[in-house]
Amino acid sequence: MPLIEPRTLKGFRDYLPEAQIPREWLVDTARRVYRSYGFLPIDTPALEYEEILAGKGGEESDKQMYRFEDHGGRRVALRFDLTVPLARFVAQHQHELGLPFKRYHVASVWRGENTQRGRYREFMQCDFDTIGTESIASDVEMVLVVHDLMRAIGIEGFTIRVNNRKVLVGLLEAQGIETGVTPILRALDKHDKIGLEGVRRELVQAAGLTPDQAQAVTSPLLVERADEATQRAPRAELDRLEQSCPLSPTGLRGLTELRALLGGVEAAGVDPRRVRLDLSIARGLDYYTGTILETSLDELRGIGSVCSGGRYDDLANLYTKERLPGIGASLGLDRLLAGLDELGRLPRTRATAPVFVPYFDEARLHDYLAFCAALRCAGLGVELYPEPRKLKAQLQYADRRGFACAIVIGSDEWAAGTCQVKDLKQQESASVARVDATGALSRELLERLRRLSGS
Amino acid sequence: MPLIEPRTLKGFRDYLPEAQIPREWLVDTARRVYRSYGFLPIDTPALEYEEILAGKGGEESDKQMYRFEDHGGRRVALRFDLTVPLARFVAQHQHELGLPFKRYHVASVWRGENTQRGRYREFMQCDFDTIGTESIASDVEMVLVVHDLMRAIGIEGFTIRVNNRKVLVGLLEAQGIETGVTPILRALDKHDKIGLEGVRRELVQAAGLTPDQAQAVTSPLLVERADEATQRAPRAELDRLEQSCPLSPTGLRGLTELRALLGGVEAAGVDPRRVRLDLSIARGLDYYTGTILETSLDELRGIGSVCSGGRYDDLANLYTKERLPGIGASLGLDRLLAGLDELGRLPRTRATAPVFVPYFDEARLHDYLAFCAALRCAGLGVELYPEPRKLKAQLQYADRRGFACAIVIGSDEWAAGTCQVKDLKQQESASVARVDATGALSRELLERLRRLSGS
Repeated sequence: MPLIEPRTLKGFRDYLPEAQIPREWLVDTARRVYRSYGFLPIDTPALEYEEILAGKGGEESDKQMYRFEDHGGRRVALRFDLTVPLARFVAQHQHELGLPFKRYHVASVWRGENTQRGRYREFMQCDFDTIGTESIASDVEMVLVVHDLMRAIGIEGFTIRVNNRKVLVGLLEAQGIETGVTPILRALDKHDKIGLEGVRRELVQAAGLTPDQAQAVTSPLLVERADEATQRAPRAELDRLEQSCPLSPTGLRGLTELRALLGGVEAAGVDPRRVRLDLSIARGLDYYTGTILETSLDELRGIGSVCSGGRYDDLANLYTKERLPGIGASLGLDRLLAGLDELGRLPRTRATAPVFVPYFDEARLHDYLAFCAALRCAGLGVELYPEPRKLKAQLQYADRRGFACAIVIGSDEWAAGTCQVKDLKQQESASVARVDATGALSRELLERLRRLSGS
Repeated sequence: MPLIEPRTLKGFRDYLPEAQIPREWLVDTARRVYRSYGFLPIDTPALEYEEILAGKGGEESDKQMYRFEDHGGRRVALRFDLTVPLARFVAQHQHELGLPFKRYHVASVWRGENTQRGRYREFMQCDFDTIGTESIASDVEMVLVVHDLMRAIGIEGFTIRVNNRKVLVGLLEAQGIETGVTPILRALDKHDKIGLEGVRRELVQAAGLTPDQAQAVTSPLLVERADEATQRAPRAELDRLEQSCPLSPTGLRGLTELRALLGGVEAAGVDPRRVRLDLSIARGLDYYTGTILETSLDELRGIGSVCSGGRYDDLANLYTKERLPGIGASLGLDRLLAGLDELGRLPRTRATAPVFVPYFDEARLHDYLAFCAALRCAGLGVELYPEPRKLKAQLQYADRRGFACAIVIGSDEWAAGTCQVKDLKQQESASVARVDATGALSRELLERLRRLSGS
């Protein structure tokens, strides 16, 4: 039979242990932060009826969606985010769940994106959302969670940019623009990539505004990157906007919400330099209706937002007549990992068990097995090499794998009740008693191993 | 716009928090056990080229596989297990990985199964496998990991049934049966469901044996359920088989492996009553070549195996010319959860943060936010209710959600620097100082909360 070439699909990737160990650590960290605010875990299917997902994220999402027909002839699709399935989930189970409902969800999503620029077609999201309240307290909480999350990951240089869709909509409404809002928001959202002039060009060419309208819409919002260092304090910026630009009542409501948001975040003790008002952010997805948020790493602005979200008060309306406003954000796990890796900030652990035991006295397999079982009973993770190969080769394996220490027991040690404990980082070795008078593992051995394994 | 009915696909399900909290706990437990043996985490894509997956698990898997054409016209499929993708993964990355390679993988798989009997089309697997060694030490380790896993989950009444495909093949070879082995193994595997007579019937009708052959093949292997209590010790059973039945050299090798496996497991200190030789188990998947294993809950035999696996020394041959023998097992997470739930053995935590803070002095939002932030800094998870509703309604919410305690602060308490700490389980309440002279949270408050939250 001819060989099948072992390969992954274009736009998909494998995670080898050196990538997956920090990925698991990041998921654990996010879960711990979400739990510290009372968010509860849920899970939903990867596959949904196509009609549940289609048309919810916008044209782009629709185009990228993986869709097909299942065995029963149903039109199905793989989820492209965790927010649309959440809206479906809450509409379906609202009476069991009770409101407000706060959930987190860690799962993969799929988008048949252009694979340029290191983007993948499968990526993991870690979302948290609050459903069932329009209170500004949950907008504040969203920012606090993102703030705590970045710090828990060990990042101190980050900026959370906030804005409010109502301000954008209010500015357009005051210009008499009430339809065709989506391409305008999409153009604004490209500010980071194409600059102020690029946004104006796109507003005219793609969104159909007149050059005057493009000028009127962008000038209050967009500050050129060079000015950022001298950016006004957020509240002064909001005052300036209110005084100098025509805004519809919706727009004024947006300003009020932004003021309350910034005040609440500051009251909770967040360093104000970490939360910045940025009237140019718009977010690509269609469903946002209020507060929106992006998070960038100060040392790596170029990779884009690593944690984004916002308020979407109407999304569940597609599935239920009950009002189910929602707000939340999504940690872009794989993008953040790539960023942390670039900055050299990922924990460098490669081994999951600290202790390595070479198996080289061939006849003693049963003794090695019993010894390793005793170590595990004492709470120490231990890997026993599976084959009686030469000691040197086994120690090279241990070194490559990044174990903290090795316990070498040959026929002399078996006879003497001792073992060699090798500190693999310091390249030191000591002979210690393996067992005490009762046959239990010696205290000297356990203490040394706990010290070496940092547990 | 008409409403879209919020529903999940047939055979798929949502996990509400009361189901997902124990599910996360079970995954964490499995990861901890796998790590204690040095297994490393990996991840692979949900979607693979169809040719990678097709024909690897057998006819049944092929029929159940979700397949379609992606945006680029590629034939793709959703993985139906984690073992076939592992074989592809190791063949593709073997030189980066180094051998032996021990990995675990927690991820969803999809099978368009008949949805009778509470089986779902999407389920999560927690697999661990060792690639690159044929040593019996890794067969022993597989049994030890399953044993430790069951105990870490809190199950004491479980039985690990082991067998070896070589014994089955050797028995058939001695009867002159060298082709058409798969339907024979599949028939044997149904012993639990259809009994000895059912297996014999199926061997004749579906696998094409003569009634004499069916008799010869089954009688050494299958013991009627009633005899199980009086089953011989495993080693006596193997001796009986060797003496009374014709076996090919392959079969004799299988017996030797089984003896070494049972000896190793016993040497590692496993209670021999928990590991039982069962010559009737065969496993449905095609790729096994040696040791095979199933795990049942003694109190719930009916739900089938909750952790299964075996040795598959030839699987990677499809993708590479290098020899990459493998062995491992898979925890059927969702099946086990259903079983634990039925037995009332799931942890009953419903809240992820222990402390609830009602928000009912409306003007004090900023103070509530600062207070909750201080509690989180002290390491206590706390949920702040998002809206200034009536206290009674908020406390009912807290009760329904299962919080350990609530901290009530109204205008009197804000003025006096105190708070009411309510033990929600015991329905007791106490007034304590909120802050000390320096403005920090009082030691009395923190101690009380730590006691109530069990941290």
